[in-house]
Amino acid sequence: VEHALRATYRFAVPAGALDARVEALCHEQTVELPPAAVTHAFVREAILPRVERVAEDPRGGFRVTVAYPELTTALDPAQLLNVLFGNSSLHADVELAAVRLTPALEARLGGPRLGAPGLRELTGVRGRALTCTALKPMGLSAKELAGLCARFARGGIDVIKDDHGLADHATAPFDERVTLCQAAVEEESARSGRRILYAPNLVGTPAAIHAQLALARQRGARAVLVAPMLVGLPLLAELAGAAEGMALLAHPSFAGAQRIAADALFGTLFRAYGADASIFPHAGGRFGLEADACSRLAEELRAPRRGLLPSLPVPAGGMSVERVRELVGFYGSECMLLVGGSLYAAGAELDRRIREFVDAVAQASQAPGTAGA
Amino acid sequence: VEHALRATYRFAVPAGALDARVEALCHEQTVELPPAAVTHAFVREAILPRVERVAEDPRGGFRVTVAYPELTTALDPAQLLNVLFGNSSLHADVELAAVRLTPALEARLGGPRLGAPGLRELTGVRGRALTCTALKPMGLSAKELAGLCARFARGGIDVIKDDHGLADHATAPFDERVTLCQAAVEEESARSGRRILYAPNLVGTPAAIHAQLALARQRGARAVLVAPMLVGLPLLAELAGAAEGMALLAHPSFAGAQRIAADALFGTLFRAYGADASIFPHAGGRFGLEADACSRLAEELRAPRRGLLPSLPVPAGGMSVERVRELVGFYGSECMLLVGGSLYAAGAELDRRIREFVDAVAQASQAPGTAGA
Repeated sequence: VEHALRATYRFAVPAGALDARVEALCHEQTVELPPAAVTHAFVREAILPRVERVAEDPRGGFRVTVAYPELTTALDPAQLLNVLFGNSSLHADVELAAVRLTPALEARLGGPRLGAPGLRELTGVRGRALTCTALKPMGLSAKELAGLCARFARGGIDVIKDDHGLADHATAPFDERVTLCQAAVEEESARSGRRILYAPNLVGTPAAIHAQLALARQRGARAVLVAPMLVGLPLLAELAGAAEGMALLAHPSFAGAQRIAADALFGTLFRAYGADASIFPHAGGRFGLEADACSRLAEELRAPRRGLLPSLPVPAGGMSVERVRELVGFYGSECMLLVGGSLYAAGAELDRRIREFVDAVAQASQAPGTAGA
Repeated sequence: VEHALRATYRFAVPAGALDARVEALCHEQTVELPPAAVTHAFVREAILPRVERVAEDPRGGFRVTVAYPELTTALDPAQLLNVLFGNSSLHADVELAAVRLTPALEARLGGPRLGAPGLRELTGVRGRALTCTALKPMGLSAKELAGLCARFARGGIDVIKDDHGLADHATAPFDERVTLCQAAVEEESARSGRRILYAPNLVGTPAAIHAQLALARQRGARAVLVAPMLVGLPLLAELAGAAEGMALLAHPSFAGAQRIAADALFGTLFRAYGADASIFPHAGGRFGLEADACSRLAEELRAPRRGLLPSLPVPAGGMSVERVRELVGFYGSECMLLVGGSLYAAGAELDRRIREFVDAVAQASQAPGTAGA
């Protein structure tokens, strides 16, 4: 199929049931009609997908690659998801395992506007992995969060983001929080000559999020955090167009409600939809990802892909200072390490712990074989 | 906990691991810090949730009800989802089983603006279940779809919606499709004196969807279809405020409802976020819902709930004309029956089949005990 959008599904069905199951999916995802009712020749030729590859999955079940005519997507960011996994997401026996977009879809979505190179440019950090942490917990005042922000900035962190759970809470209203935290990183940037980024969390309805983005820009922020599955993945594509010069960090919150493989969602799709950096749970943390899925995910974010800039992988989800060397070994230094709880757990020793994190990243990045990522 | 948002989770863990697992979820969903790092008294008192109830689940595992202080949600439609099931959605051992919102959250979300009574008002249909079908497949021209629309209208269907797979396709551009289909239902409405609704499908980024809503209104449409999980559930709340006088039909596409119970998502949440009618797969169709989940779902849509209007249940997903009597028996006549493929499968006999559907609904609704729903 020319101009084909390719999706690979993993079916947990017995071999004897596979053909009928795949045919049902092909119809469900496009015409949503029983095969006998698909009578138009054009619809059969130009709308129904073709099955390109069927293979046993070593983990059990089957992996089936389906080629959808690009036309089915109308080159629309929401309709694309609909075609990939709309109604079929409701079926427990199938998961979306991999996605290969067409050049036209990638061009429409646009991918990261700054990407990994832009994040290097914004921070001025070269030759080592970037460091990132989160301001938390909710319930602190804007002043308290800004106080933490100042400590993280002084300690040498490159990117200080809101926790994804910080909304426009009465305890730390968005405007006040952004104003104070941005002032904190600007003060330390001026003092140290480093270029520290503060990334406020955007959360709300699309209109609220656009307003928050504008306010964040006005207050001087050069990066924002957003959880695409919480607010709607199509909104990420819209924000990528609106963020002009600001880095978009994507957070995986609420993503587990869909059965989409982590590398396809946080890798392929988040990058295509415009995330400059993609936060995801690394293996061996609080979440269940496996190391090989993490490798594929990083590969999806970084692999040369026509007009798409690479996104920066941000392994997270319960990482500790003690794992920095291992993480830089795994991802190379073309990544950003996000460590939160492991710093906060130090309590009164927070400042010392921040420095340990920063030093560990600098040292690990100098180990042989990590620079190329 | 006063003003508590209550969420019930189902954990698939052994009894000995439950307490620690529940404590981890309580922290993950709010402070996202290890317990030892939660040192502020205010955060412990006013942010951390309380476990209210733990019970064995007859299906295995445990059902645990957690009461979140309302403050954690900032009364924000996206943050609410974040608190309910943000990071925890990434954990395979837990599902979100039930949600009980607070009055303030329900007031903020607003619920259905027209609801079931408004759909009765718009269509003028009383004393029986409403009938609904879908225009499809993608690949047909706008003229062909409008031709089908006219046939469904003449056959007596009340609500004719786009298939959720119809986007702004080159084969049937949104404006042309809406213009022609709306003209078709208006012509038949004028001829017959019935008030037939055509509901175009809104799909795209939030900005595109707002533009489509405005265009649909301009062309005279009084209803629209949207798949909230595809475009972002918070956008549904925004659309409910913008749709003024137009009915919002919610479609379950991309909802991957395995990890959020169908009754909680398509029932409790879709209603609170503003769906006037909620389409969901009924038991025994192409999807795996069970009858008792469907009962609870309809109950969530219709139960008296302070300031919230009831939403109309729309059982669908492979329903046939032959099941009409059973469906009206199950849901009563305060519902809308959506039958698509079972009509299209009739091929050249489509008109006859439409009439069978319409007649079956009228007859089934007159059976004793169905009117009260």
